[in-house]
Amino acid sequence: MITGKNYIGSQLKAGGNITLKTFNPLLNTENPWVFTEATHEEIEEAVALASQAFDSYKRCSGIEKAAFLNTIADEILALGDLLLVQYCSESGFSKGRAEGERGRMIGQLRSFAEMLIEGSWVQATIDTAIPERQPAPKEDLRKMLVPLGPVVVFGSSNFPFAFSTAGGDTASALAAGCPVIVKSHSMHIGTGEMVASAIIKAAQKTNMPEGVFSNLAGAGRTLGASLVQHPLVKAVGFTGSISGGRALCDLAAKRPEPIPVFAEMGSVNPVVLLPEALKQNSQKWALAYAGSITLGAGQFCTNPGLLLAVKGAALNEFAEQLAKAIEKTTPSCMLHASMQADFETGIFTMASQNGVSKVAQFTGEVPPNHGRPTVLKVSGEEFLKNKVLSHEVFGPFSILVECNDEAELLQIINTLDGQLTGTIIGEENELHEHQDVIFALQNRVGRLIFNGVPTGVEVCPSMLHGGPYPASSDSRFTAVGTHAVYRWVRPLSYQNWPDDLLPAELQNENPLQIVRTTDHKLTLSKI
Amino acid sequence: MITGKNYIGSQLKAGGNITLKTFNPLLNTENPWVFTEATHEEIEEAVALASQAFDSYKRCSGIEKAAFLNTIADEILALGDLLLVQYCSESGFSKGRAEGERGRMIGQLRSFAEMLIEGSWVQATIDTAIPERQPAPKEDLRKMLVPLGPVVVFGSSNFPFAFSTAGGDTASALAAGCPVIVKSHSMHIGTGEMVASAIIKAAQKTNMPEGVFSNLAGAGRTLGASLVQHPLVKAVGFTGSISGGRALCDLAAKRPEPIPVFAEMGSVNPVVLLPEALKQNSQKWALAYAGSITLGAGQFCTNPGLLLAVKGAALNEFAEQLAKAIEKTTPSCMLHASMQADFETGIFTMASQNGVSKVAQFTGEVPPNHGRPTVLKVSGEEFLKNKVLSHEVFGPFSILVECNDEAELLQIINTLDGQLTGTIIGEENELHEHQDVIFALQNRVGRLIFNGVPTGVEVCPSMLHGGPYPASSDSRFTAVGTHAVYRWVRPLSYQNWPDDLLPAELQNENPLQIVRTTDHKLTLSKI
Repeated sequence: MITGKNYIGSQLKAGGNITLKTFNPLLNTENPWVFTEATHEEIEEAVALASQAFDSYKRCSGIEKAAFLNTIADEILALGDLLLVQYCSESGFSKGRAEGERGRMIGQLRSFAEMLIEGSWVQATIDTAIPERQPAPKEDLRKMLVPLGPVVVFGSSNFPFAFSTAGGDTASALAAGCPVIVKSHSMHIGTGEMVASAIIKAAQKTNMPEGVFSNLAGAGRTLGASLVQHPLVKAVGFTGSISGGRALCDLAAKRPEPIPVFAEMGSVNPVVLLPEALKQNSQKWALAYAGSITLGAGQFCTNPGLLLAVKGAALNEFAEQLAKAIEKTTPSCMLHASMQADFETGIFTMASQNGVSKVAQFTGEVPPNHGRPTVLKVSGEEFLKNKVLSHEVFGPFSILVECNDEAELLQIINTLDGQLTGTIIGEENELHEHQDVIFALQNRVGRLIFNGVPTGVEVCPSMLHGGPYPASSDSRFTAVGTHAVYRWVRPLSYQNWPDDLLPAELQNENPLQIVRTTDHKLTLSKI
Repeated sequence: MITGKNYIGSQLKAGGNITLKTFNPLLNTENPWVFTEATHEEIEEAVALASQAFDSYKRCSGIEKAAFLNTIADEILALGDLLLVQYCSESGFSKGRAEGERGRMIGQLRSFAEMLIEGSWVQATIDTAIPERQPAPKEDLRKMLVPLGPVVVFGSSNFPFAFSTAGGDTASALAAGCPVIVKSHSMHIGTGEMVASAIIKAAQKTNMPEGVFSNLAGAGRTLGASLVQHPLVKAVGFTGSISGGRALCDLAAKRPEPIPVFAEMGSVNPVVLLPEALKQNSQKWALAYAGSITLGAGQFCTNPGLLLAVKGAALNEFAEQLAKAIEKTTPSCMLHASMQADFETGIFTMASQNGVSKVAQFTGEVPPNHGRPTVLKVSGEEFLKNKVLSHEVFGPFSILVECNDEAELLQIINTLDGQLTGTIIGEENELHEHQDVIFALQNRVGRLIFNGVPTGVEVCPSMLHGGPYPASSDSRFTAVGTHAVYRWVRPLSYQNWPDDLLPAELQNENPLQIVRTTDHKLTLSKI
């Protein structure tokens, strides 16, 4: 079923001579399939096709695009268990996780389809003419969102389904009306090819233009750089490391025509444990956090990597309970041998810093490529002195920072980099006296969580998955939820435009029956 | 009334020793006032104050911010005719233009105040909890827009009121909840100081935090660069040239923490004259365009600098009528001697290109610093060969491109840079056969105009003043209209947050009575 080739539009091509293989971390061995890196010519062809496809794809109605997205979901499901087996063999994840994440991918595709069918997402805004206005008449003006053009999507390592080939970036860009070129993540190219085949089938079944989707494989940064620098590419979506994301942002910013890059990057997701909560519920929160730190081998962007609290008996009790739970947590397989090696290096680096000691580490035997759950601790004073301690260690890891007092805790929050999430664990009666901490945390994060864990990113309109740099490259957008579509669109105004030439969304009769802002009022009415 | 000092918050300071003067282009002489460039220490102080002010300003209610904006408008009006005199002496504009532009500035301030009082602009989105959901409960999630932090605003040369000290960028940033530091445009520092004094008075009258606004003067690019690179600055607004805007974008992109820059830059605003319209109404359109090209000495971002049509008798007739009108148009005073010199150089450069000939030029005597209305022409073939011909000449200038056929016209549109506006002049019955031209133009512009002129930028929610690069640095935002506020805000999600700690906008009772998206439905209802 795996051909090892690139989809240049609907054509499978492999004209190059650089080959790649993926790795099965559970079996600790290379997978059998041989993939061919896309050539310069194949990249050029994919981008040219995407640019041509844009001309007609941007004119597709919401209903047509919704049919495309729903058919992609159908075709992915039609791949059945074979796809799940492929996913597991290239990620080390369990079949349960594979099914769950497939559900998320399917759910995302269908939620964008629903958004398109409903139609109001284009933010149609109409100000009707006032011909008699003095000193000059007011012209009729109407505005709605239109797609930017071809989008390049970089698949993530840790979500082979939900943030890769047909993941949130692809689904939102296709929903926007932008053709997509995926740079498949090198850890799961086979999974990517299977999902790509479903997208291509769906494009053909729903009569989408050739080139609306392409899927390319490549190992190093050359392929990605060529795509981001290509003049016909108009935007980029990325999920991964700070260094990778920043490199793409820098390339995009240096283009003759700079383009927007939405990169969702690193985060340590600080958790503030308030004193009353520690006193009253240390065991409950210790168990919850042991679970959150080790979930999915800690390979989540929202993994809680930094626990902050004021020192004392209650915190000691929490640390003991957390240690017990962590020591009992069986290690899980990580995505790749290199990931596990990086994780061990990360722990070693952290543990070697001044003043760092161990809270807990799983002590049993750790199978190859599995992540050893680890929690370290350090004083607030040391943490403030040493920037290394605030770096992300990708895997089942967290560092507990014992602050001298609340002033020190506040100072730490105020010096943190931007974060995807920030969490407050507290009893309701103690929150008002810690308002400063809460407001400081709010400045740093994209999502504030109360009495919960940051892992688990709900797909819904009120989700913000992003945040101040370097959590994301642009805090004004989200990677998760239907609002993710706003990364790939721009408003276009029509002044005094003939009704029959306007897009249906802006016509007088409101034929799509969408909610519009007409003369400052939200309404479903016609004009 | 003019002190020549910088406002560092509410304090007038001039600790530096570099001084500046402004120029009266009508009198062709330097103005008497001496301004002092802000020092490094003054910049540091202004930014530190803005950052401190952010802590409390971001917590101000919409009502409080609206009172601030309305009081700014009142205080500007209270400056009376003295302000208009100052404006005229630093711009060469007439008193009528001064009054008109003051009205626009006041109108903008009040429209943002209205938006704040109404309150729904924060896009409150609520997804309520589903505790019984399987396999995992859904948490309560609520999202709204929050301000980014201190914003630096670069005043424009050509709108000393509406796009400078208290112009659209400042008004929208203050509305968003962001403190503002203005880098006054060096051509009208005195006007800037007077307007700044009104803002400071208003801040004091409405109890705004010290540092919510500062106003700095400086000549070269050093001051601007220091501001854009300052770690406590979180966003930038700019109106001006492509080279100036791009330089700021590049600086911002290279920061350790990149920040968004919204730069509204150059545009030649292509106008497509369709054959039937030329045949039936060449005189009407020639007069309209002679007016639009020369309005305000052509010193508008939306000045129509590029006229495109297929050659033939009707186009010749149009060109003749245009020539007559242009030759009769009395030159107007330009903003500065340097502006007029640049304009003459621009015309000379254009006229020196291969194949360029004159359509019309005012032939009478041109007073010092006045712009000589000029229209040149060239063939489509030459235009396609020579990128120089698509550059902006800032002033009362346009170039008419005579295309061989519609295919050539289409090719020209497809190779144009991004534009603020694109205009179609046509009879309704010929539009359907020229759909390709229209769709091509749509790809390139922020606003499409039918049978009108691009000058005249209405302030209303459906206005898009921006467009693909280099018309703006980010086509997803607008510089004009209340939607301009979206440049300075980011969404923040609250998960499972206690109701009494939520911002009023997200509380169950909906105390502000704003429109919210609750469980996928737009509603004013409480939860």
